[in-house]
Amino acid sequence: MDKPATHYSVLFVPSGKRVSVEKNRTVLEAAEAVGVELNSLCGGDGICGKCKVLIKSGCVESEPSQFLKPEEIRAGYVLACKARVVGDLEVETQPTVESGDEQILVSDTVPPGAAMFTRGGDVVGIEMAPPLEPGEGGGEGRQASPRSGKVTATPPPSPLSAVPLAARLQKGPLTTKLFLKLPPPTLEDTLSDLDRIYREIARSGDVPIMQTGLANIKNLAGFLRGADWQVTATLGKRGGTVELVLLEKGDTSRSNYGLAVDIGTTTIVVQLVDLNSGKTVGTKASTNKQAKYGDDVISRIIFASERSGLDTLRGIVVDTVNRLVSYLVTESGVRLGDITAVVCAGNTTMLHLLLAIDPTFLRKEPYIAVANSVPVIRAAEAGIRINPRGLLLCLPGVSSYVGGDISAGVVASGMSRSPELCMLMDVGTNGEIVLGNQEWLVSCSASAGPCFEGSGISAGMRASTGAIQQVQIVGSVGGSVMGDFDPHPNPLPEGEGASFRVVFTTVHAGKPRGICGSGMIDVISEFLRVGVIDRAGRMDADFPSKRMRRQESGEPEFVLAWGPETEYGKDITVTQSDVANILRAKAALFAGARVLARKMGLTCEAVHKFYIAGGFGNYIDIEKAVRIGMIPDIDRAKIRFIGNSSLAGARLALVSSEALDEAYKVADRMTYIELSADNTFHEEFTAALFLPHTDSTLFPSVSKQA
Amino acid sequence: MDKPATHYSVLFVPSGKRVSVEKNRTVLEAAEAVGVELNSLCGGDGICGKCKVLIKSGCVESEPSQFLKPEEIRAGYVLACKARVVGDLEVETQPTVESGDEQILVSDTVPPGAAMFTRGGDVVGIEMAPPLEPGEGGGEGRQASPRSGKVTATPPPSPLSAVPLAARLQKGPLTTKLFLKLPPPTLEDTLSDLDRIYREIARSGDVPIMQTGLANIKNLAGFLRGADWQVTATLGKRGGTVELVLLEKGDTSRSNYGLAVDIGTTTIVVQLVDLNSGKTVGTKASTNKQAKYGDDVISRIIFASERSGLDTLRGIVVDTVNRLVSYLVTESGVRLGDITAVVCAGNTTMLHLLLAIDPTFLRKEPYIAVANSVPVIRAAEAGIRINPRGLLLCLPGVSSYVGGDISAGVVASGMSRSPELCMLMDVGTNGEIVLGNQEWLVSCSASAGPCFEGSGISAGMRASTGAIQQVQIVGSVGGSVMGDFDPHPNPLPEGEGASFRVVFTTVHAGKPRGICGSGMIDVISEFLRVGVIDRAGRMDADFPSKRMRRQESGEPEFVLAWGPETEYGKDITVTQSDVANILRAKAALFAGARVLARKMGLTCEAVHKFYIAGGFGNYIDIEKAVRIGMIPDIDRAKIRFIGNSSLAGARLALVSSEALDEAYKVADRMTYIELSADNTFHEEFTAALFLPHTDSTLFPSVSKQA
Repeated sequence: MDKPATHYSVLFVPSGKRVSVEKNRTVLEAAEAVGVELNSLCGGDGICGKCKVLIKSGCVESEPSQFLKPEEIRAGYVLACKARVVGDLEVETQPTVESGDEQILVSDTVPPGAAMFTRGGDVVGIEMAPPLEPGEGGGEGRQASPRSGKVTATPPPSPLSAVPLAARLQKGPLTTKLFLKLPPPTLEDTLSDLDRIYREIARSGDVPIMQTGLANIKNLAGFLRGADWQVTATLGKRGGTVELVLLEKGDTSRSNYGLAVDIGTTTIVVQLVDLNSGKTVGTKASTNKQAKYGDDVISRIIFASERSGLDTLRGIVVDTVNRLVSYLVTESGVRLGDITAVVCAGNTTMLHLLLAIDPTFLRKEPYIAVANSVPVIRAAEAGIRINPRGLLLCLPGVSSYVGGDISAGVVASGMSRSPELCMLMDVGTNGEIVLGNQEWLVSCSASAGPCFEGSGISAGMRASTGAIQQVQIVGSVGGSVMGDFDPHPNPLPEGEGASFRVVFTTVHAGKPRGICGSGMIDVISEFLRVGVIDRAGRMDADFPSKRMRRQESGEPEFVLAWGPETEYGKDITVTQSDVANILRAKAALFAGARVLARKMGLTCEAVHKFYIAGGFGNYIDIEKAVRIGMIPDIDRAKIRFIGNSSLAGARLALVSSEALDEAYKVADRMTYIELSADNTFHEEFTAALFLPHTDSTLFPSVSKQA
Repeated sequence: MDKPATHYSVLFVPSGKRVSVEKNRTVLEAAEAVGVELNSLCGGDGICGKCKVLIKSGCVESEPSQFLKPEEIRAGYVLACKARVVGDLEVETQPTVESGDEQILVSDTVPPGAAMFTRGGDVVGIEMAPPLEPGEGGGEGRQASPRSGKVTATPPPSPLSAVPLAARLQKGPLTTKLFLKLPPPTLEDTLSDLDRIYREIARSGDVPIMQTGLANIKNLAGFLRGADWQVTATLGKRGGTVELVLLEKGDTSRSNYGLAVDIGTTTIVVQLVDLNSGKTVGTKASTNKQAKYGDDVISRIIFASERSGLDTLRGIVVDTVNRLVSYLVTESGVRLGDITAVVCAGNTTMLHLLLAIDPTFLRKEPYIAVANSVPVIRAAEAGIRINPRGLLLCLPGVSSYVGGDISAGVVASGMSRSPELCMLMDVGTNGEIVLGNQEWLVSCSASAGPCFEGSGISAGMRASTGAIQQVQIVGSVGGSVMGDFDPHPNPLPEGEGASFRVVFTTVHAGKPRGICGSGMIDVISEFLRVGVIDRAGRMDADFPSKRMRRQESGEPEFVLAWGPETEYGKDITVTQSDVANILRAKAALFAGARVLARKMGLTCEAVHKFYIAGGFGNYIDIEKAVRIGMIPDIDRAKIRFIGNSSLAGARLALVSSEALDEAYKVADRMTYIELSADNTFHEEFTAALFLPHTDSTLFPSVSKQA
């Protein structure tokens, strides 16, 4: 007969809900029992520190936690998940966490070329496309479509658990879970606890060098017996060896998640991925708040070299990643403790700052990174809050100015496995360009500036809600009617006739708040076409429209959206300086591409596939990008916008060890060419400060149209 | 022209010495300049915490240190090595550290069979013997002689630096230092700092999987430039990979040391080894102070299973090892920071306690270890104070009762590579027996009790100064005159005639303090020979000598040494219980050996080499060990005493990766036989409780002599 358990009453304020619970239940369990929502991200593991509550009266038994400050402890705060009820209680809860952040639009379209990677069974990297025919492996699969970070309803791939362990370790995700039913020891089978686990793992498949940390061993005896010999092992790939990362009671093999993280100079994006299915659960993005210490990497490096600057910048990026992870787990209901791996892509400076590696010499000639490839560490070592034993892998870079984000992009584009000549142009705060194929790869970095990411432009913004992303000027000078263009209602201002209209779309059809990268390309192209600017980018201050006016300083500007229709009630304009900035950016990109091709004795026009990547938003008008001379004038069918290829590459490397291995190979064999050491670059740059180019023979199709 | 530096006056009390030093010199440097001796073990790295001084007046600039308690900081204590002089000072120093501990005699004779191991160039394990002929590799080298832990004056082996890196990693010590002159980066050679180091290492030889910790990377940029690109890399073998353990400025490759540690239930021994020469610098031993929580492993496991018991026992063993290391570095002048590796051998329980691994289930049927092989960790993780990045490797064991100490012993004996049948009997607190050859190995553990280590015997002690180690009874009953026996002056007591004398030698010729293991074997053998005891071990209370008497309890005892001549002024006696204890111990050992042989369808008499190991002291009289029936009655030339084979094996594994690999192979292929599950063991044990044995046909040579 069971002894009756003592029960206590727990009252939650301000909700006023009351519940009677057994002695030694946690406050979190009490809250859950009565439907009081607490900010628990980790599901009660004590690792997120979010479920803080105030014990207003009564007694709890609680464990110490790093998440409580001394003054909070004195005031009576506890973590609800670690506080056991040992008397009647009154508990004050806090408002639940906000899940809103700047909702930056993240597209990362993995082109068919990337579909070569498998994760043990299924082909990955083409979440939206059906698997390729077996045997063929690569080539032209179906075109992948852009994604907005939601789980799509495509047929589920075969579960990872059906894939043999050896194949999983060779081709599967960075971490994989394996449920083990261990035979209990007997006098005839006296293998040690640890070897018993190893033996059972080995029965599932051949594992190369196997290791584990002492932390997993110390209390293994009680753990295994308490779990009745049924445990789930998380195996992770780490520095050429396989690590027994984590042991959990029972069968948790269905819940294994990872994060793909893109740390850009201007934007940070985190994607939550189900490692069993390879599917994306959600994506969140934020501006990189380091920007207050400088827009570009150079000013951040200078700040980091100052006293405690490095710690400050490191703290900012880690906090941002943790915040985005919070939103993701809150929305999806995934337990923080079920996230066991992070793959991070970023430029070399960002990765130095993330890991608190001194970046000082990145900016001093001869521009040397401390490390382009860093060891796999525990995410907790970097301060990233997932399972405390989860792994963090930073994708390897090539040089101080071609980082892991570019290796990721090359993998995502598939160009490193292509027999044909490909070019990748990744437009971020810097613009990196890669040229090559399965035989060779060269890269360079052009200081394009962050204008396509929304910085340095008066009305610039990231591709988040309300960003003007497509622009067309209709009328007077004559232009084609836009096809599937569903423009934002942009009523005619007083005096503007139907013969001259500016129509545009915004991200998420929000009220206009600014202009994102794709909008800027359209703006320049349309300005040129209708005569707002000439081929040198000079604005025609006498352009016959009320939209053209002068600022108080005398600088000409063009009104894209009138104040009453915008989110903030102010006109959204493009100024002469904005145009000049965009021209410099596109000129740097094009000049970089030209120099890179010439170094190899080739021309840009020889490329068979041209990939353009970056945070432009969901769309980029390829035709217009060519017309302004940002992209070489080649057959448009050869040009493909692949969105955030750094994020896509990180995700591929997270779910497919084949893709991860490819990233290391790419970083290893890619040659870096320093543009500042090339005496033709400046000349090329100057020549490209024209629309499309001073040498019109480089843009025959544009000349023909004009 | 140099700017003149400001100087300050530093007065040391109580010495009264005064010195003028430049601003920002450390107090330690000031002390060294004027010859004031401080307790610095680490040579100024701030990692030993020994150079604590009190600033009585004046100001220093000091770094925080874990070695100073808050109250000490308030009182004005600083670490002399981390306190910079910024004004006139009065400094109070402390008495220098005592280097005395119980000076336990440690012999570890590696027999010629072990000479198969090389460390890249030289043959190791036979420090006292010349290298073998190349090509032959093994076989019968010259007999190694016992050592007392001092560096001997044998010709130095070729320096490790002359050995190619690949060979060093394959066959050399656990850690090896490599001086690197890195070419500074240029615009043409923009390799990252870390890859620059890897490249230079790779130029020295092919290194397999290479990894390093983030700690080495974070400040690498400033470090390399501050070192003018000339650094010494310490490479360590770790879990199948090679780790860049440590980087130091300049060329420190001549100073690389390791520790071989034997953690026994009763005794802990630490040996300091020069990893470049393979030579032993010094050896220190101490009793295992865990003994106050129980003499045997079972009582320690019970204590460890209690609240905080595990932490207590862990703390004791770690403190003891650290204390012994302190003595070694103080005596030798080796810097603590130059010790980069530890290889530890011990029984399974001791290794669980060292690493704070829960040992509870070692003593519960079916007697399961948590791990017989644990990963290589940093010594600092276990609390062992050497270079903070130095490695700790614990040799792998076979089962809960045949640990890494036995794997070490098998390696040291060379039996695992012998074509002929060998037996190893390791007499410690338990007695472990191994039988086998290069084809197979079986082992068992017999609860012999710690009497040969000096516990459980009324006058028992370890083989330290004053321990009676050889005993002969001369006269009356008749006995041969001892040959090279230089007995301790043991004057005749009143009334004892020249016709009956007890002569003995003591360790270090000290005044008698007790009896060690080898002395006990002699005592029993001599008692039997002259009739003090009969073949059942019963004392003849009427034996015609004043030395034979009864205790107050009525128990007979025999006086070995008279009070006035002993260290403590008390008679040293052997009681009836002592004899019975020794009989039980030798019976357990012999019975274990018999059962093990019979399990394999063999007899003990079939062994070609019989190795006896243990802390008996420098000597063990093989003939007498056979006569009391502890060792099988085989050709004496086949029997060899090899001292502390656990320590010897640990040292071999430390200096030779070949030996280390062999230890893993031995642990892997050795089969464990549980004696308690064998129904013949008890019978064998009972039969062996006789001198030499109830079955006299087993000891034909003894019967013949008698």
